[in-house]
Amino acid sequence: MTIYFPSVENQVAYEGAQSKNPLAYKYYDADRVVGGKTMKEILRFSVCYWHTFKGTGIDPFGWGEYHRPWDRSQDPMQRAFHTLEAAFELFQKLGVPYYCFHDRDIAPEGATFKESCDNLEKVVARAKEMQTATGVKLLWGTANLFSNPRYTHGGASNPDAHIHAYGAAQVKHALDATYELGGENYVFWGGREGYDTWLNTNMKHEREQIARFFHMVIDYAKRIGFTGQFLIEPKPKEPTKHQYDFDSATVLDFLREFDLIDHFKLNIEANHATLAGHTFEHELTVCSDAGKLGSIDANRGDYLLGWDTDQFPNDLAEITRAMLVVLKQGGLGSGGLNFDAKVRRGSVDTEDILHAHIGGMDIFAHALLIAQQILDDGEWDAILKKRYASYQTGVGQEIMNGTATLESLEAWVLQQEEPVVTSGQQELIENLFNSYH
Amino acid sequence: MTIYFPSVENQVAYEGAQSKNPLAYKYYDADRVVGGKTMKEILRFSVCYWHTFKGTGIDPFGWGEYHRPWDRSQDPMQRAFHTLEAAFELFQKLGVPYYCFHDRDIAPEGATFKESCDNLEKVVARAKEMQTATGVKLLWGTANLFSNPRYTHGGASNPDAHIHAYGAAQVKHALDATYELGGENYVFWGGREGYDTWLNTNMKHEREQIARFFHMVIDYAKRIGFTGQFLIEPKPKEPTKHQYDFDSATVLDFLREFDLIDHFKLNIEANHATLAGHTFEHELTVCSDAGKLGSIDANRGDYLLGWDTDQFPNDLAEITRAMLVVLKQGGLGSGGLNFDAKVRRGSVDTEDILHAHIGGMDIFAHALLIAQQILDDGEWDAILKKRYASYQTGVGQEIMNGTATLESLEAWVLQQEEPVVTSGQQELIENLFNSYH
Amino acid sequence: MTIYFPSVENQVAYEGAQSKNPLAYKYYDADRVVGGKTMKEILRFSVCYWHTFKGTGIDPFGWGEYHRPWDRSQDPMQRAFHTLEAAFELFQKLGVPYYCFHDRDIAPEGATFKESCDNLEKVVARAKEMQTATGVKLLWGTANLFSNPRYTHGGASNPDAHIHAYGAAQVKHALDATYELGGENYVFWGGREGYDTWLNTNMKHEREQIARFFHMVIDYAKRIGFTGQFLIEPKPKEPTKHQYDFDSATVLDFLREFDLIDHFKLNIEANHATLAGHTFEHELTVCSDAGKLGSIDANRGDYLLGWDTDQFPNDLAEITRAMLVVLKQGGLGSGGLNFDAKVRRGSVDTEDILHAHIGGMDIFAHALLIAQQILDDGEWDAILKKRYASYQTGVGQEIMNGTATLESLEAWVLQQEEPVVTSGQQELIENLFNSYH
Amino acid sequence: MTIYFPSVENQVAYEGAQSKNPLAYKYYDADRVVGGKTMKEILRFSVCYWHTFKGTGIDPFGWGEYHRPWDRSQDPMQRAFHTLEAAFELFQKLGVPYYCFHDRDIAPEGATFKESCDNLEKVVARAKEMQTATGVKLLWGTANLFSNPRYTHGGASNPDAHIHAYGAAQVKHALDATYELGGENYVFWGGREGYDTWLNTNMKHEREQIARFFHMVIDYAKRIGFTGQFLIEPKPKEPTKHQYDFDSATVLDFLREFDLIDHFKLNIEANHATLAGHTFEHELTVCSDAGKLGSIDANRGDYLLGWDTDQFPNDLAEITRAMLVVLKQGGLGSGGLNFDAKVRRGSVDTEDILHAHIGGMDIFAHALLIAQQILDDGEWDAILKKRYASYQTGVGQEIMNGTATLESLEAWVLQQEEPVVTSGQQELIENLFNSYH
Repeated sequence: MTIYFPSVENQVAYEGAQSKNPLAYKYYDADRVVGGKTMKEILRFSVCYWHTFKGTGIDPFGWGEYHRPWDRSQDPMQRAFHTLEAAFELFQKLGVPYYCFHDRDIAPEGATFKESCDNLEKVVARAKEMQTATGVKLLWGTANLFSNPRYTHGGASNPDAHIHAYGAAQVKHALDATYELGGENYVFWGGREGYDTWLNTNMKHEREQIARFFHMVIDYAKRIGFTGQFLIEPKPKEPTKHQYDFDSATVLDFLREFDLIDHFKLNIEANHATLAGHTFEHELTVCSDAGKLGSIDANRGDYLLGWDTDQFPNDLAEITRAMLVVLKQGGLGSGGLNFDAKVRRGSVDTEDILHAHIGGMDIFAHALLIAQQILDDGEWDAILKKRYASYQTGVGQEIMNGTATLESLEAWVLQQEEPVVTSGQQELIENLFNSYH
Repeated sequence: MTIYFPSVENQVAYEGAQSKNPLAYKYYDADRVVGGKTMKEILRFSVCYWHTFKGTGIDPFGWGEYHRPWDRSQDPMQRAFHTLEAAFELFQKLGVPYYCFHDRDIAPEGATFKESCDNLEKVVARAKEMQTATGVKLLWGTANLFSNPRYTHGGASNPDAHIHAYGAAQVKHALDATYELGGENYVFWGGREGYDTWLNTNMKHEREQIARFFHMVIDYAKRIGFTGQFLIEPKPKEPTKHQYDFDSATVLDFLREFDLIDHFKLNIEANHATLAGHTFEHELTVCSDAGKLGSIDANRGDYLLGWDTDQFPNDLAEITRAMLVVLKQGGLGSGGLNFDAKVRRGSVDTEDILHAHIGGMDIFAHALLIAQQILDDGEWDAILKKRYASYQTGVGQEIMNGTATLESLEAWVLQQEEPVVTSGQQELIENLFNSYH
Repeated sequence: MTIYFPSVENQVAYEGAQSKNPLAYKYYDADRVVGGKTMKEILRFSVCYWHTFKGTGIDPFGWGEYHRPWDRSQDPMQRAFHTLEAAFELFQKLGVPYYCFHDRDIAPEGATFKESCDNLEKVVARAKEMQTATGVKLLWGTANLFSNPRYTHGGASNPDAHIHAYGAAQVKHALDATYELGGENYVFWGGREGYDTWLNTNMKHEREQIARFFHMVIDYAKRIGFTGQFLIEPKPKEPTKHQYDFDSATVLDFLREFDLIDHFKLNIEANHATLAGHTFEHELTVCSDAGKLGSIDANRGDYLLGWDTDQFPNDLAEITRAMLVVLKQGGLGSGGLNFDAKVRRGSVDTEDILHAHIGGMDIFAHALLIAQQILDDGEWDAILKKRYASYQTGVGQEIMNGTATLESLEAWVLQQEEPVVTSGQQELIENLFNSYH
Repeated sequence: MTIYFPSVENQVAYEGAQSKNPLAYKYYDADRVVGGKTMKEILRFSVCYWHTFKGTGIDPFGWGEYHRPWDRSQDPMQRAFHTLEAAFELFQKLGVPYYCFHDRDIAPEGATFKESCDNLEKVVARAKEMQTATGVKLLWGTANLFSNPRYTHGGASNPDAHIHAYGAAQVKHALDATYELGGENYVFWGGREGYDTWLNTNMKHEREQIARFFHMVIDYAKRIGFTGQFLIEPKPKEPTKHQYDFDSATVLDFLREFDLIDHFKLNIEANHATLAGHTFEHELTVCSDAGKLGSIDANRGDYLLGWDTDQFPNDLAEITRAMLVVLKQGGLGSGGLNFDAKVRRGSVDTEDILHAHIGGMDIFAHALLIAQQILDDGEWDAILKKRYASYQTGVGQEIMNGTATLESLEAWVLQQEEPVVTSGQQELIENLFNSYH
């Protein structure tokens, strides 16, 4: 049997913050209990199949260059099986409990739709065996309705009903595959569900198409008994000039408008948040406040670049804020932290994949420790509670419980002195956050 | 009586596209009928009070410099009355039918809340006389809950209930003033309704505060019999790091979540659209498709600058697309085109105000002519209709009327050949648009 | 013989602004004299080989989809020859006098460096015949040091001297090819001459490597007698996180630092300008003022997208400003207007290529007519002259000729009244520009 | 005598990383030796006068609100003297060795130029006494040529020679003041040296004006014996649409073009770097590589906002990279770390100023410790050295010493195998950097 990641013999070990071993965890200690649960239970890490196993290093100005040992067979199905072996080897060596895939990542597209479906079924059967053998589980599955040129003008939003129907049929099989593998969620990322120019687009019609599409999927899931969580992943643009799922608020609006709100949660990606002009923690909070934070695509962008760089996370302060949102809502439920991230084009060694995941897992583990400490200390929470305390009594309470009126508030204001502005204490709180390690 | 704009004796005249007179309209011909209505009826231009009469040229790195002839009195109320005279002189010389204001633009803030209310009432009484005398009407009024330091941490969203109550009382009077002056709409722009740092903010609480605030206003409007349209104006950021009314979709989501959707439409500003990462036409279309495009703040930003430059519109192609949205929905109803735009800091002459408005009105008039021609020709519409034609029959129809299922679509797809991708014809349509003058 | 662009029988004809024929020029009238030269002489249009003939529609989220009739042979050299036929057919049907290429566009890369060179020579020989037969000329050639994975970490700036040497050898042959074909310029676009992370980069060393590389090229050109103009094309980023040739000023600084300033001019691309935070006209002016505006890559970006969209130009106002810079410096010399632009991924029909170029040529022709009219009228020029008139006499003159000192100016200032700020008249001038059609 | 910062009795003390006292340093330990020098010697902190003492919290949508105890007198000169007392109290309580000012920060503008000069002289005399008494020194002085409306169209670049002359006279006095106070540098930040619209601007003329201005200043400095370092501070935009000193490379190009390169170094501000599309470390490296890194304006921007937020620094990873550049060039010479940063509008308490500076000093001290550790360990340096090792021998050496030619390199390449791409190891190095605390 081929060994694809020979530099780790068994499993990446936790060696603590002082370790100089690049192939050891400095913070991720799977069974360490933090706030009542183990790191493994809270963080629910997942490796993504596409970037990690099917990425080639291609970019818009150069072709792919990785020479992955699992991609050497001439036969596409053999490559798919070799990749599966490499994938499960990595999952185990990293000790991650989950993985995620698009249908076309794990099985090659065939000459016909039928052949594509057959390919998928065969690989799913093998994957199921490997899941059973290793205990690694499927966090979520999804269908790729964006890479094949047929989806150039959209999947569900395609102006051609034929292609919408094709996409529907493809999602049916991707959902079947997810169900078969016990996937805990099913994700929609609408890469081509948007437009390239307003000039040739009927937005109203296209959004209605998408809504119809989602209703069909929900009905089908009910019929087959799939009870996993449906997730939508917002992104503002790229590849299209403008995606309909621009950000969390836009997705929530769409779900409310088309009576889909009870069937979906959101999958928030850090890089998509910043491309939309929001911080990662903003998007997480918008979802969490709406009871709709379902899962996370753990990566980072580059604030000075205008495209999706999908880098591995490494900003401790940012991830700490993210973990605060997650901990405050009591965890991610059936969701997880999926590394939708790729090594750089220039990181051509297979071993770079190990460094990338180790770094990503460690930054989240470190951030978890800090976030839990912030919550345990209670200093931050006390500042926030005090700031809004005036709404707990008097006119504040009346405002919040709906008994105040403009007239009653005016009458009250006329009896008061001019209000005094209180410091927002931004610098103090920033220092407080920087004081945790 | 003082003449404030002496370079135009009576009214700016329409002289046609060949005129070299900078103080004449080249396109705006108020009574010219376009598509069944006069330009004046369709465009419903409005001058904004704040930038045009109260702007000083101040910017973050330098203080104000305009020496407006209406701002010379030592007495704030006298300045207010002189400004009113200058304003109505300008409205008439430009021939615009509407104006807009914030409470604190038209009347100075007093030492106490009571005094501020009294000041407002006095100026409103005078304004009412001038409206009657001139026929100029109030497009909308609003309250300024952002300039006074007391609103630093927000108006409705302020963590201090006292300030929320103060804002409520202020809006009560601004709404009274709007009602008294026959204002056709009332606008909310939440300049401080956002946060400066996520670290000190309870977003969920603040959004609930805002919702409570709006419900109070709606109830009060019902009690006093105000039947104008309420409008919310989205903006993503500035002055706050992140405003809650980020863009149209965000506002619509908020309105749906808090059961406010039936009481509001949106007021879309070009510069706010682009700051949020959307084109002007995108935001207009989002609103129009939702039946919620109420009014427009007609200006432009600078795509290479990251703040609200509030320049006068002058991009013919962009305004043409905007007018297409407006014409397609049958006009703006009770809304209008309000020039929320300011002359540049360096445009220190009072006459520059005339050039700015003449240019802005002409670009909209020109765009209107082109947009109507595009609709009359029908070539663009035909391209769009053809593009979505497959949804009128067969599986397309079944998708749209909800009778298709994933299974029925798969069965149908299996009977078809691979779908063929049709050109989106972006370049052809761009050339078509460029062929209109 | 295969006809690749059958929808135009002979040549795209000029039919005037009122024509409704999408395959006719509305403004480009090759022999029309504007300001003493023909449109053809001034505009010096060039078709780019890469996007137009070798583009596939690929993007970071989907593979290529165009099925170009010239790309059907199994044999790479046959495809190269078919492409050459299609290219010259297009050049002639459009009536453009120039084309541009990278070495790897016109000839396929071979299994070895030697084979690549041989391929190139064979295609160049054929191209030379076709140039002679048609009169179409080579505006510029260049070497592709970015697509092949070997250049992942740079060409001239590669940390591996082997790859630097490889790039040098490749440029030698690309320059030979350009010389052989009578190319009037030779361009360097440093797509990979930058870094992906500061963490692994010695910028000082890499910039010195590039300087050494350029000096070798200049010396070699002298030896073979190539007298064409060398050009550098700035771009701030993409594919790398940060390119060394960020913008015009950065390139000029580099050229001055390394004693290369006399050997180079710049090739300015509209989309690269805006990605760097500058307007197109700004970058053109920076170069022109330095006597270094050599050629133009005529395209446009999308201000709301953060990557190089390379769309065909279609903004009349922007191109008018560009043409003003070109006309003011007396034309582009040996440079031209090269359409470094691609049809959209969704514009899958070969005919879309025609629409794209026709639109691009028309917008430049239209802009040329307006720009010449602006210069002929002299109104704009008069405003500018008046604005700086104070430097023609008195202290202004002393400042400019270097005879003033801080002391002399202080003494003079103390004798004057407070200076009066003059209006910059931005709105007036904007209206003036909008008054031309 | 008034105490302005009562919450610190004597001086902010170093209490170590575990301290919970918000008014203590956790990392800044002035006399701690790091790499052979004390923290105080390396970091050379400076408080800026404008934001810290003259900031009001004003922003484009609201007026100022701070009620500083030193700003209560009706008399402008009294306010100036009180501010001076408050400033020196703060300098001493923080233990910073330096401060910086604009002429108009420390002394009020008078009714005439003469009066302004007199005011400045009086305050400078007092400041000199306080410097002597406390040992606090002036890092740099500068003249404010942007706040007064007279400079709306520029200082040195003003189209009106009268205003250019006025600015020259003002700089003369600001330089005199800096000289008198033993300022170690003199800075130029060209806030208005740019344009608002290309349409009314002669860039070539304006850049020549600026060059003439600088030559006059240099000549004057020589005459009075001022031997401090002249510094230019780049910024891309704001308040103008486009500043001439866009970024480091642009400034270096300007200095080389106009024979000023020997007289200037650069003052790099973090927030200006990111507004220009560069990282802070990029700009520092560009300057350092050119031998031109003179001083630093220590602050941060917000990557999601398009204006200068001037926040206090608090990103440990970013500041660590900055300190690596500083340490590698052997320190900042006569420059320092000036906090060109302001507390947020909502941080209305005077005490917030203390928190802001303590946080900023601590983050730099912490970063210094990490940066020195990275250098001491040598692991990073070894990776970099190895990466470029091929230029130390063979063809690499020939390339760098100028003996290689295109022909010699081609001949060598033909003898080699295809080069092998080496991993850039970005993820490994990122993990390495994250492993330091």
